[in-house]
Amino acid sequence: MTMTDHTHAIDLTCWVEGANGHPDFPVQNLPLGIFSPPRGGPRPGVAIGDWILDLGAIADHLPDALRLLLGHDRLNRLLALPSVERRALRQTLSRLLCDPAAQPALSPALHRADDCALHLPARIGDYSDFYVGIHHATNVGTLFRPDNPLLPNYKYVPIGYHGRASSVRPSGVAVVRPSGQSRAPDAIEPRFGPTARLDYELELGVWIGEGNALGDPVPIDRAADHIAGFCLLNDWSARDFQAWEYVPLGPFLAKSFHSTISPWVVTPEALAPFRMPQPPRAPGDPAPLPYLLDPQDQAQGALALDLGVFLSTARMREAGLPPFRLSTGTAAAMYWTAAQIVAHHASNGCNLNPGDLLGTGTLSGSDRESLGSLLEITRGGQAPVDLPSGERRTFLEDGDEVTLEARAHRDGFASIGFGECRARILPART
Amino acid sequence: MTMTDHTHAIDLTCWVEGANGHPDFPVQNLPLGIFSPPRGGPRPGVAIGDWILDLGAIADHLPDALRLLLGHDRLNRLLALPSVERRALRQTLSRLLCDPAAQPALSPALHRADDCALHLPARIGDYSDFYVGIHHATNVGTLFRPDNPLLPNYKYVPIGYHGRASSVRPSGVAVVRPSGQSRAPDAIEPRFGPTARLDYELELGVWIGEGNALGDPVPIDRAADHIAGFCLLNDWSARDFQAWEYVPLGPFLAKSFHSTISPWVVTPEALAPFRMPQPPRAPGDPAPLPYLLDPQDQAQGALALDLGVFLSTARMREAGLPPFRLSTGTAAAMYWTAAQIVAHHASNGCNLNPGDLLGTGTLSGSDRESLGSLLEITRGGQAPVDLPSGERRTFLEDGDEVTLEARAHRDGFASIGFGECRARILPART
Repeated sequence: MTMTDHTHAIDLTCWVEGANGHPDFPVQNLPLGIFSPPRGGPRPGVAIGDWILDLGAIADHLPDALRLLLGHDRLNRLLALPSVERRALRQTLSRLLCDPAAQPALSPALHRADDCALHLPARIGDYSDFYVGIHHATNVGTLFRPDNPLLPNYKYVPIGYHGRASSVRPSGVAVVRPSGQSRAPDAIEPRFGPTARLDYELELGVWIGEGNALGDPVPIDRAADHIAGFCLLNDWSARDFQAWEYVPLGPFLAKSFHSTISPWVVTPEALAPFRMPQPPRAPGDPAPLPYLLDPQDQAQGALALDLGVFLSTARMREAGLPPFRLSTGTAAAMYWTAAQIVAHHASNGCNLNPGDLLGTGTLSGSDRESLGSLLEITRGGQAPVDLPSGERRTFLEDGDEVTLEARAHRDGFASIGFGECRARILPART
Repeated sequence: MTMTDHTHAIDLTCWVEGANGHPDFPVQNLPLGIFSPPRGGPRPGVAIGDWILDLGAIADHLPDALRLLLGHDRLNRLLALPSVERRALRQTLSRLLCDPAAQPALSPALHRADDCALHLPARIGDYSDFYVGIHHATNVGTLFRPDNPLLPNYKYVPIGYHGRASSVRPSGVAVVRPSGQSRAPDAIEPRFGPTARLDYELELGVWIGEGNALGDPVPIDRAADHIAGFCLLNDWSARDFQAWEYVPLGPFLAKSFHSTISPWVVTPEALAPFRMPQPPRAPGDPAPLPYLLDPQDQAQGALALDLGVFLSTARMREAGLPPFRLSTGTAAAMYWTAAQIVAHHASNGCNLNPGDLLGTGTLSGSDRESLGSLLEITRGGQAPVDLPSGERRTFLEDGDEVTLEARAHRDGFASIGFGECRARILPART
């Protein structure tokens, strides 16, 4: 059972400059990542305020079990730890960062985040993307299949598909506008060229921790233990390619050119205070099949996260205009919990490995302010968005920059955030 | 241009016992793999007759550039070599194995293949599966969509999708019957349980060699240079799960429980004599779009391979009956060449990495003897196959063993084979 403890107390005082009240990374968060300091290679670190703590440099202060895991440039082995050991790391870090007596020893291991490079936190063996945002599924279904928006399997099967692991990049890496095949509505022949309908998708990413052996399913009441953390995920999409290629085997080149994630692994322990019951199913909806149903997961499987999407165009930046908020949403709009997608993914014996990444699918809310893609906001390009610069957008233009954010709030607890998930569009290469 | 040279000469004489005239691995083949000898860990090797040559043990005899690549338990770095260096390795090996003077030095590095374990040849970063067998696409399309078997995109887009890399296993590893959701034709609710429609799919696998950077497409006239080899691929499929889950995002758990490959990487150089022109498109078929069209690829992009599928049941083995041939096919039934699927995959800038695996999709021929899956042979389970044991099969039963084979023949050249791609079905785990 996920519970809060002293590491979540709102009155913790951290000695790191600017950490108390930090919007993303107060001492109650302590997300894990891989960073490079100004002089040095990739290594494990923890975000604290506007700083990064080099875990290898403070190995003498950490539990024995962790020391051997720190000499790597990927977190895979750290993510694979049983949750009890991950929790021990959290408790040790919380104690050290709140104990002024530890400051002299730890300060040399702190680097200003602005001076560091952030990398992918893990070698992603496989990346799978789901479709749990029921409002998104309905909205997109209406555009692609007006007569049949939500298919008969949707409320039984946590629909998902395999994505491309090699093209996942951390926040900040620019996205090259992809070329591909598309067919205009009135054309017989397709054409090949740069996408004219480049879109983003607001998703959460789920990092797999402990894996399962090939052939051994993960029971639903154990599934949460296989989750090592969460991130933001922008599943960039070329809608024109997608419409032409996706039948019968699903999206492929419309998605595989790039996916952006926030580089910090926000742990289940950090998110414990922000658990909430899974929203009740609508009247008439079937109950989940037994292999997906766990009362505890239903009681606390949703996350109280506020999500936001911001757009900044080249002209807006030149004019000194701040990024424009395209949408405001909530992660509670997931028809299936993270534990349910893990249990479903492994239900056929498919082996999940530490560092595998699962995407939730686009998280749109039920109202017009909480749509997680331009496809939905502009109703397939029919209703452009007016920007403060006087520009309009149906889909993304070169130079546009999209930033996703997620923050968790709850009365009586310190708010935490996921950090930045941002990338800018570069012109197609010819 | 792929050409034959002295390493293909039919009159080469190899000093390794039993290698001359070996049905799979004469000295004209020289496929690469990862094996473990009876006492020792995984290492790179070359199949020669019924033996495996330990490459690390003969490093002193190999080109300098290769020596540093041999201390690994995966071939990824070796596959990443430019084809000119892979060719140099082939020529050196061919010379050594045909030179009786080299026998004393090399003999200690030979292990009987029967005494060795074979592993996956590479760490598979991503696995993608295509759908280039046009007869298969038409046959399956007819079963799933009788009114609309071949979709409008098929003759323009080399249709593919991302597969699951983590569950690819080498020949010989048993397949656990997967459980999952399916819905009977007359039912409203799905059920969860072991698949009742377990099938195989006969495919070729394509090993990626040199990669491409994210954002940089691979031009069609360079695509063949990114292929480091070929293997057999059995894309095990649970047809009942597939029918229920595959709309709208494609096959997922119906495939991700296990895929079997033959463990030897048969190089493009070994296959050079067996290149043939891509079959002409049917009258009325569109020409490939320019990014997929290369005259040289059209002139030699197909492979003259004879394919076979064999079934052995537990009762057949007890009765001493040999495996039953389910089908006889040819790899020439590919609507798109291997180079075309590579160029298409990277056309949006998706980065392919050394050791990535691409599947061709099921290779069925145009006649009833050359169907590459039970779904097609039994017409969706309507027409059972009679076996010599008196048993009948619509789909696979526990204890059944499926073996795929591929051999290349051409007058004036030594025949070569791919080696075994075999696995047995174990009962579902409850």
